[in-house]
Amino acid sequence: MFVGKIIGTVVATRKDPKLEGRKLLIVRPLDEHMAAAKNDYLVAVDTVSAGYHEQVLVVQGSSARMAFGMKDCPVDSAIIGIVDSFVIEDIPGESG
Amino acid sequence: MFVGKIIGTVVATRKDPKLEGRKLLIVRPLDEHMAAAKNDYLVAVDTVSAGYHEQVLVVQGSSARMAFGMKDCPVDSAIIGIVDSFVIEDIPGESG
Amino acid sequence: MFVGKIIGTVVATRKDPKLEGRKLLIVRPLDEHMAAAKNDYLVAVDTVSAGYHEQVLVVQGSSARMAFGMKDCPVDSAIIGIVDSFVIEDIPGESG
Amino acid sequence: MFVGKIIGTVVATRKDPKLEGRKLLIVRPLDEHMAAAKNDYLVAVDTVSAGYHEQVLVVQGSSARMAFGMKDCPVDSAIIGIVDSFVIEDIPGESG
Amino acid sequence: MFVGKIIGTVVATRKDPKLEGRKLLIVRPLDEHMAAAKNDYLVAVDTVSAGYHEQVLVVQGSSARMAFGMKDCPVDSAIIGIVDSFVIEDIPGESG
Repeated sequence: MFVGKIIGTVVATRKDPKLEGRKLLIVRPLDEHMAAAKNDYLVAVDTVSAGYHEQVLVVQGSSARMAFGMKDCPVDSAIIGIVDSFVIEDIPGESG
Repeated sequence: MFVGKIIGTVVATRKDPKLEGRKLLIVRPLDEHMAAAKNDYLVAVDTVSAGYHEQVLVVQGSSARMAFGMKDCPVDSAIIGIVDSFVIEDIPGESG
Repeated sequence: MFVGKIIGTVVATRKDPKLEGRKLLIVRPLDEHMAAAKNDYLVAVDTVSAGYHEQVLVVQGSSARMAFGMKDCPVDSAIIGIVDSFVIEDIPGESG
Repeated sequence: MFVGKIIGTVVATRKDPKLEGRKLLIVRPLDEHMAAAKNDYLVAVDTVSAGYHEQVLVVQGSSARMAFGMKDCPVDSAIIGIVDSFVIEDIPGESG
Repeated sequence: MFVGKIIGTVVATRKDPKLEGRKLLIVRPLDEHMAAAKNDYLVAVDTVSAGYHEQVLVVQGSSARMAFGMKDCPVDSAIIGIVDSFVIEDIPGESG
């Protein structure tokens, strides 16, 4: 999984029937300092009622279909959590 | 998922029986400004009757087989929606 | 999926029992001009009796096991079509 | 699989019901010298009671759901072992 | 699939129960000239009794669980063959 920030929305009127009523959000991956790592994005289905600019946990691949309500849906990325804290206790300069 | 633009077609007469009658389109990934990010492409099966130069939503991996009519098909990318709007409300300069 | 060119063969006498009798080909990915994009390759199982230097359609991941005769086989890439034509109608200079 | 080092924790109060009670750890991939290869990370679910700064074995993709207790969970990365030794016996300068 | 060379071993005493008794090897990917492409590695489970410095065929993703004896195991990479020959008959300078 990785942590991203919600930065937008995708609207598609004509779409797969299983996507009806799903909220498709644009997520920008965040680096370990919770800053946008690069001008990158992906489209993920929302399963936790996430809001704009919230930091979220994203699962990818077939496991996105294990998210709540996503069984057998054609989705490869799902928002599965709102991140409250992301704490790194790495010791700089220490190898390994 | 990601958003791409349809830029061409692949024709393969000799192919897996499960691909008979499927439309195989060439999709170029688009960046967040809806411009072609790079000289890259993938071949995706069309499941929403997408047209040339339309902006489409693409799902990858095993979830491509969850798209309409694709059950048990040897496809790893499927077009599952026509994008009506792609709106980013990111605040430039704001970290995270 | 992507389009590649067959450039060689891998022979492995000692191998997984489910690979017995399978033809393992070396495939070089092609860019959108049907030129070799880089010195890259992958090994794919052939399911359409592809020949040397032919341009082929390759499927990856779990969907490779959906190719003809590949059920439950330990393969992550399969050749599933011979490409007759690959036509791009992109308009250069046009953004998006 | 790859070897990484645990460098932090993610807390998400609002999350997928199947993630309740799971420990979500931040893992930094290690290179072959067991040094941090780059400023990269991923979030993995812990299944072996791993501790801070321990070197761990990480499995990705659908196989993360095969880890102990993870059946049908929306996770794409799982910590499945504590690395005791990682020994390379490559001969430098030898091609291939 | 890709071809790699076995360069080491990973030992993990505390690990997922399904990994008990499995041999975890460090594999370095090889380029098309059978030279180490880069300082890269992955950890794969051995299913063909491969030996040090042997050139092996590696399968990734969920298909690694299709390798002999790996059903339902939390592995995303498996060694499934010993490479006897890897022959490329590409014609240099020929585009596509």
